[in-house]
Amino acid sequence: MSKELVFGHQNPDTDAIVAAKAYAYLQNKLGLDVEAVALGEPNAETNFVLNYFDEPAPRVVTEAKSEVESVMLVDHNEPQQSISDIEDLQVTHVVDHHRIANFNTSAPLFYRSEPVGCTSTILTKMFDEEKVEIPAQLAGLMLSAIISDTLLLQSPTTTEADKIAVKTLAEIADIDYEAYGIKMLKAGTDLDSKSDKELVDGDAKSFTMADKSVRIGQVNTVDLQDVISRQAGLVAAMDAERASEGYDLFLTLATNVLDSNSVLFVSGDPTEPVEAAFNAKFEDGRMSLPGVVSRKKQVVPPLQDAFEK
Amino acid sequence: MSKELVFGHQNPDTDAIVAAKAYAYLQNKLGLDVEAVALGEPNAETNFVLNYFDEPAPRVVTEAKSEVESVMLVDHNEPQQSISDIEDLQVTHVVDHHRIANFNTSAPLFYRSEPVGCTSTILTKMFDEEKVEIPAQLAGLMLSAIISDTLLLQSPTTTEADKIAVKTLAEIADIDYEAYGIKMLKAGTDLDSKSDKELVDGDAKSFTMADKSVRIGQVNTVDLQDVISRQAGLVAAMDAERASEGYDLFLTLATNVLDSNSVLFVSGDPTEPVEAAFNAKFEDGRMSLPGVVSRKKQVVPPLQDAFEK
Repeated sequence: MSKELVFGHQNPDTDAIVAAKAYAYLQNKLGLDVEAVALGEPNAETNFVLNYFDEPAPRVVTEAKSEVESVMLVDHNEPQQSISDIEDLQVTHVVDHHRIANFNTSAPLFYRSEPVGCTSTILTKMFDEEKVEIPAQLAGLMLSAIISDTLLLQSPTTTEADKIAVKTLAEIADIDYEAYGIKMLKAGTDLDSKSDKELVDGDAKSFTMADKSVRIGQVNTVDLQDVISRQAGLVAAMDAERASEGYDLFLTLATNVLDSNSVLFVSGDPTEPVEAAFNAKFEDGRMSLPGVVSRKKQVVPPLQDAFEK
Repeated sequence: MSKELVFGHQNPDTDAIVAAKAYAYLQNKLGLDVEAVALGEPNAETNFVLNYFDEPAPRVVTEAKSEVESVMLVDHNEPQQSISDIEDLQVTHVVDHHRIANFNTSAPLFYRSEPVGCTSTILTKMFDEEKVEIPAQLAGLMLSAIISDTLLLQSPTTTEADKIAVKTLAEIADIDYEAYGIKMLKAGTDLDSKSDKELVDGDAKSFTMADKSVRIGQVNTVDLQDVISRQAGLVAAMDAERASEGYDLFLTLATNVLDSNSVLFVSGDPTEPVEAAFNAKFEDGRMSLPGVVSRKKQVVPPLQDAFEK
């Protein structure tokens, strides 16, 4: 068998980096020659995690076909989220927890997807199925990925399987996952070092709702006042992005990862469907959204419904 | 949880029928309300299997949305091989051993695919992982599906996992799988009782290759001359199917299950990519393909590549 690369999505988060490392470890134990790489540098949270467990960041690659013929994907499957030359590579393995879209192969492959909060939760089960022990250091990384994706098991994407995996991994890593998790989430919310543009667009995704182009970003914080104090700059940055990219409406959700409350900032029109979606009003250009943490589950679906009414 | 249906592909073969029954059994044990159904009547081989193990054939359905909102797929994923109203249904689970193509969901789901010879091999592993015992009768069905898909472990699609599953299932079912397997394969090759249309379309699957609609059928036999003597009728039947269903190209692979050689019959255009794929020419409307027994592994991938060049 020739060497393969395994990687997560572009703009990697902790799960994208960690799941690649974990799956490479598992595949190497099963006899394949696999190297974990990344499609970008680790973010602040992932750097905290790698430092904490004394693990190197994976090598960053922008294309793969100069070194391998086939690859494995973790934490994504959609080609536009993957490596630039994905169309020239054979995908042999996928482990993921997202919808399947625009993913086509010409040959059968290993594909393992479950509707759980984190890829590392599925990998925890796969180590168990293959009877491969998870080393303590790797368990710490995988635990961090689940804490990151589920906001310490608070996000509505959290499943029973995620909770079981966190307990298993915390035991192997011998770590108080709640105390560690808060430290880790805080490390990922160093907003001071980021520009207003980076904050609103760093994690933003585009959606088409009725005939409107809607851009929705999300910023995690441990203190919503930190973000509110930058409102004027954030709105100016959203205005500029709308002007240059042609979005009708730009929304930025600032989420307190410790108490699971959010504030929504707005730029552009129409704002009526947003107010209808959440049954609340914008005041001073922002809206309070208690209990909302998940863009995927709590923001996009009600907005889509309100726009299409 | 509301009730779901689980089914294999159109023109069901033994694996499509059996994997649906096995997955429904497993899901019911895990607490879901799932009924195994089929998208067509069992073929001669499957009827032999169901009679042998005294199991009823699943209910045949042609659409699902009048009775359920969501479904599970086994032994296929491509929508054109699935139920007629698949676009109106949510797919929550897939267990399959084919390539992934044109399969898109709006939500995360369970998807389990492995490049092994048979869906029932993957299901055998899943019963083990979930610690659910396989009843003897069901083990006999699953064993039959693997024998059918791998031609008694002779097909190049056969993997180590298939061999292990056959041994496990033969023990549970308490059966001499080689003697039983030859009887079962012969039962599936009674071609005299079938019309030309039944031969070409009974096991056929549709594929989109470049912008062409390609239909590929397969007929198992113990004597290729029996099939060659019916060539004129088979081609006329393929012509008629193309006219009524709009396929560009119809191919029928006749396979000798005892010596693993095939002959390919053709109707429609273009034939150049077919000749390029196999580096051989059609002579008198047919092409000899020694050693070719697997549509999935030895026919679809080279054809797809040739069409997309």
